[in-house]
Order: sequence, then structure tokens, then C-alpha cells
Amino acid sequence: MITSADNEQLKTIRKLQDKRWREKLDLFCAEGEDLVEAAESAGWEPEIFLVAGDDVEPDLLGAVSSLGSGTRVVGVYKRRWSAPGGDLSVYLHGVGDPGNVGTVIRSAHALADGPVVLGPGCADPFSPKAVRASMGSLFARPPARASFEELSGTLVGLEAHAERSLGELEARPPLVVCLGAEREGLPPGVPAVARIPLRADGPDSLNVAMAATVALYDLANRMAADA
Amino acid sequence: MITSADNEQLKTIRKLQDKRWREKLDLFCAEGEDLVEAAESAGWEPEIFLVAGDDVEPDLLGAVSSLGSGTRVVGVYKRRWSAPGGDLSVYLHGVGDPGNVGTVIRSAHALADGPVVLGPGCADPFSPKAVRASMGSLFARPPARASFEELSGTLVGLEAHAERSLGELEARPPLVVCLGAEREGLPPGVPAVARIPLRADGPDSLNVAMAATVALYDLANRMAADA
Repeated sequence: MITSADNEQLKTIRKLQDKRWREKLDLFCAEGEDLVEAAESAGWEPEIFLVAGDDVEPDLLGAVSSLGSGTRVVGVYKRRWSAPGGDLSVYLHGVGDPGNVGTVIRSAHALADGPVVLGPGCADPFSPKAVRASMGSLFARPPARASFEELSGTLVGLEAHAERSLGELEARPPLVVCLGAEREGLPPGVPAVARIPLRADGPDSLNVAMAATVALYDLANRMAADA
Repeated sequence: MITSADNEQLKTIRKLQDKRWREKLDLFCAEGEDLVEAAESAGWEPEIFLVAGDDVEPDLLGAVSSLGSGTRVVGVYKRRWSAPGGDLSVYLHGVGDPGNVGTVIRSAHALADGPVVLGPGCADPFSPKAVRASMGSLFARPPARASFEELSGTLVGLEAHAERSLGELEARPPLVVCLGAEREGLPPGVPAVARIPLRADGPDSLNVAMAATVALYDLANRMAADA
């Protein structure tokens, strides 16, 4: 039973709240029973595994957790990355909000066969907030890293003002749905662009995680119908 | 120019971070230029309007804002509620995350003609986090309050394990898409239920804001095609 805050495992967990340490140690944390169960069912072995009350005093675990007191279990895992690919996947460019990155990882796991590919300027998918928002899908389907130029397949950019609507696109695999940050959008040179049809009296765009999910739903359904 | 933290307007803004004060004063805050512009273009008159550097010392405004230092403008508005209705709307039951509530308000404004109806157990749509997630759609389309029993139109519950898929539902208006919290779900007695088709090897469900947005997209598209 760990009874001192000077314990090396606790120090590591505390460090992993910081992106630079996650990169340096090539590790990240999952906090809470749902996430460590998701890791286990996806076959991930933890490097560190601490259960409050069994392995460590509950207050000490709470003090190093991003969730604070009440955290019952923390697992530390080696980071993993997938290779881009699949019949349907998503590429995110400059999406800096970790909640959005994690949510898209969950949606892609639910609706597509390919990973979420993270381009430059995206939030760290291994941050506590992104891991939580992924609801464990990060373990089953780790994200990929690539620049826009390295992608293969038919790239479809989602842009609010594109002339063609999503439904007019042919849903022929392999397709990579490309989304940029809400203000900056995608880099120039996306070969095909489409918009999600929205009401004229409403907002200009959907939240980036909503747009990604709608596009995956639409394209996955039409791919399944054509298959 | 306000130069004292004892100023009554600043005290009001600080109080409005607390739900009980929002209810007692029937007011709420919008912080940042984008949100106060959204309020203005929807025709809302602020009760208090403070610009950092013009009306108030920047540090004092930062100290009462939920965004902290760097907040350039804060508007305080009277709360407003819509009546349920429209050809297509959303009912949320027990959705406690303010980010999800605000995001659904934005998506419904983009894809549907009716308001988001908030049932028991939902997060306050006038909390700073919900207002921000709505990206100003809260002003153009204020939410409604009603219990499940008070809704009219055809109620369609989204449930992960429903037999029928969303695409099998007839998209005949008026339709109210009903979603519950991720764990607890909807109360018993929803007349029709449908699921969003997900991959067998993926997660059990989408995030509630994703599910609402996908359902609105699907049904709005089919209503438009039938009209």
C-alpha cells in the first residue's frame, strides 16, 4: 500500500497530466473504471495500475489524478498509434479542443472502419480530457498521425460554404473525410469539398465533432447500402 | 470607468456564475465578442454591458468572468424560454453536461425549426459553459422547458438497442426526437424507439449530442425531400 506522495508511480501519474511528459515517457493515463476496463478488453497491459484503498491511499491517488478526489483507479499505458487507412476514416486539421478530438475518436469507432488521423495543430489525443471523451474508443482504435499530403484514398473536405452537399458525393471507398478548425478551416488544396446542408436561418456551421459524426453516418450508411 | 471590485454590476456578473443566482435574478451572462454579437443580431438588449478598458478595468472584468483574464466584453441578459413546437425538435431528458446541452441547441438551430426542449435533470442552458457551446444559438432559439408528458407531436426515442433503425422511421412532421442521459436513458413509455445503426465492433452508443445531431440531420433531410 502506497502511503507517501513521494512514491515514484504517483509522481509518474502526476507528470502525465503534462503533454511534454506524455511525449517524453511515451505514456498516458486512463482514470476511472470504465476506461481501464475498455483498455483491458482491447488487450492493453498497463505499465502502472493503482486501485484506491488496495494499492494506494485514496487521497494520494486523488491528488495526482485529473479528476481529483474520488478517483478509484488509474492505469498508465504506453501510447500507440495506428496507420491511416480503411474504407472510411477522418482526418482532423488544427482541431485544438481535446474534447472534440476524443469525441471524434468515439464516433469514428462507432461508424467507420478506419482510425482518426490527426494532422498538425490537433489536441493531444492522450490528454486526460481526450481519453475521457473517447470513452475508451482510443484503446480499441488508436489514432493515426499524418499530414494532409500523406493521406491516400479520396479526400473529401467538409466546408460550410461548399457548393455541393454531402449527399451529392459518391460514397465510394476508400474515403477520408477531412475537417479543419472552426475558424481556420482546411489548408488549401483539398481536391473535393462538400457541405452539410443547414437551415438558412441558423448558424453557419456545426461543431467540428458534430460535422464529422454526421458525415461518417451519411457516408457509412450509403457505403453499406451500395455494398 | 469602473475601478472597484465593489461595483454592483461586477458583483451581479460574479453571482451569475451560480445557478441559484441565475434563477433568482432571472439573468445570465454571455462572455466574449462572438456571443454578445449573436445576442445583438438576435435583437436582445443587455441589462448590463461592460467592455474591458472602456467601461471597466480589464483585471476587474477578468476577475468576475468565467473565462478569467482576457475577457474583453460581458453582457448580462434576461433569461427567455421558447414554447415547444415546430415540425422537428429535440427533447432532452436528464442530460446533465452543459457542453452537451449547448451543443444540441446549436445543432437544432442549424438543422431543425423547433427549440430544444429540456426535461428534468438537464444542465442549465444559461450556464457559462452551455452558452459558449451554443455559440450564440441560444439567443436565436432559446430552449423550452417541458416534461415528457407535456410534449405533442410524434415522439421518437433514440435508444441504442432499439430494433428499428432511424432510417426505417417515417419522417412525417411534427416529430420530437427524444434522448436520455447516456447511462439512464429515457423514462419508460416512449411510444416509438429507434437506434442509430452503429458498427458491431464499436462502442454501444454515440455521445448524446452526436446522436441528437445525426438524428436531426437524417430526419430533416428526409422531411425536405418529402416536402
